[in-house]
Amino acid sequence: MSLTVVGSIAFDSVKTPFGERERMLGGSAVHFSLAASFFTDVRIVGPVGDDFGQPEFSLLEGRGVETADIVQVEGGETFFWRGSYGFDLNTATTEETALNVFGDFDPELSPDSAAASTLFLANIQPEVQRRVRAQCRDAGLAALDSMNLWIESARDELVGAIGEVDCVLVNDAEVRQLSGEPNLARAARAVIDMGPRTVVTKLGEYGAALFTQDGFFAVPGFPLEDVRDPTGAGDSFAGGFLGYLDGVGGTPDEADLRLAMGYGTVLASFNVEKFGCERVSELERDEVEARLAELRNMTGL
Amino acid sequence: MSLTVVGSIAFDSVKTPFGERERMLGGSAVHFSLAASFFTDVRIVGPVGDDFGQPEFSLLEGRGVETADIVQVEGGETFFWRGSYGFDLNTATTEETALNVFGDFDPELSPDSAAASTLFLANIQPEVQRRVRAQCRDAGLAALDSMNLWIESARDELVGAIGEVDCVLVNDAEVRQLSGEPNLARAARAVIDMGPRTVVTKLGEYGAALFTQDGFFAVPGFPLEDVRDPTGAGDSFAGGFLGYLDGVGGTPDEADLRLAMGYGTVLASFNVEKFGCERVSELERDEVEARLAELRNMTGL
Repeated sequence: MSLTVVGSIAFDSVKTPFGERERMLGGSAVHFSLAASFFTDVRIVGPVGDDFGQPEFSLLEGRGVETADIVQVEGGETFFWRGSYGFDLNTATTEETALNVFGDFDPELSPDSAAASTLFLANIQPEVQRRVRAQCRDAGLAALDSMNLWIESARDELVGAIGEVDCVLVNDAEVRQLSGEPNLARAARAVIDMGPRTVVTKLGEYGAALFTQDGFFAVPGFPLEDVRDPTGAGDSFAGGFLGYLDGVGGTPDEADLRLAMGYGTVLASFNVEKFGCERVSELERDEVEARLAELRNMTGL
Repeated sequence: MSLTVVGSIAFDSVKTPFGERERMLGGSAVHFSLAASFFTDVRIVGPVGDDFGQPEFSLLEGRGVETADIVQVEGGETFFWRGSYGFDLNTATTEETALNVFGDFDPELSPDSAAASTLFLANIQPEVQRRVRAQCRDAGLAALDSMNLWIESARDELVGAIGEVDCVLVNDAEVRQLSGEPNLARAARAVIDMGPRTVVTKLGEYGAALFTQDGFFAVPGFPLEDVRDPTGAGDSFAGGFLGYLDGVGGTPDEADLRLAMGYGTVLASFNVEKFGCERVSELERDEVEARLAELRNMTGL
């Protein structure tokens, strides 16, 4: 079993009411990889610049993430994002974005990355997602994330990409925008009609909901009293979700999908307890299991 | 076992993208009563005008609701509300409100109403809630709802009222506003510190979450593809929740509270399928049980 994730590797400067950090390691593929690393072998694919060094490689490798497919672009700079959150932490304000080497990213997978059993296409241009998917045809489970930018500017390509994966993981605003349907159940159904077997809608602090052709399952957000930095919560969810499924292997059944929703929720909850990757990079598997047991006790009639 | 609810009885004119109705029977106490009527004996207390007649009494009595404590004010008119919902159904726009007889409402409970084992103080002025609570001292379970208007204009009275009940049922925006805490878990904890054992936050389409001194439990909204009129969903939830608990009797334990959350969710989901009380007034108990079984299957890890 192995999981390849393709997406952004970044430096994030983040300010929330609970503190601030400069140039932390971040990016979708990073948050995803760290979360997934609790369950399976993870290979991260993405570009970085000369400013990306041993501390960043070590953080990923410390969790066992395979970094051989990170492409270091000579003379380039790593994707940079600066943002802040207000008192309610629900909305990020972007203050600066510099795509840098990520702007020209057109990945060629190594044979090892292309041989993954599970593929996650983090939020990148849909046409890039399709080219990566085409290089990784044997992945029995392929999933993608997206965002409003691509729904607005590259809808046809995105619908094409969705038709080539098994699972779409997006937030609820995105699934509504993508389908043009304000009703969440209808919106998810419309996306399933584009091809994937499963649509997971991330609901922020309200948790996540999973839709299949004739099924529905929901998990609440883990009730944290101390949330310090929500950056990367959605990617951590996706990492816990797909990492668990890749670890199980084969075509996931209903019970696998439910547990995966639980692990996604647990990893997202740890991610937001501290800034950036601070919490997940020091997390232990027994903490994951303990919180899953707590979550299990908070759900179910 | 018997449940007394004190609150508004209204005529509602509602327009949604799926249709419109003029002067339907509505109001918090009405939606609550109909939902609670599946589980226990319900007495509704509230004022109406000359315009309230046999069709309205019959609708309530058809579900077994005791209407003897409805006060018909001679020469008065019933509370009237006109509102509309846009395409996403999440926000009501009020176009007209006429409090009419509800404006001077200062209930005196009959001996039968005052002898209730459970009391629900629907969203009315906090000082009226306190006067009613004082008349119904023997209720082993008392709960209240409130709204932004009272949080802003009568906060001290509201905090006093909250200190005199066992359970607060409000929406998530209200619990945040009341506590001044954007974090939902902290906000609920702050309200529990005002006195009640239980705080239920209604999350609209995302379901509901229950907080106790050291417990948390959440239920997702039932995934409906056809929502026609969300008016009264919160009161239907409260009716299912408290009605079930009154039917069980005694001090509710954890398992009772969980099932009550389930019944609240189920009643709210039926309520929004048609306009006003159209769906719940024709609902059968076996439909309630069937949907609870479906909901149970959609939750729990």
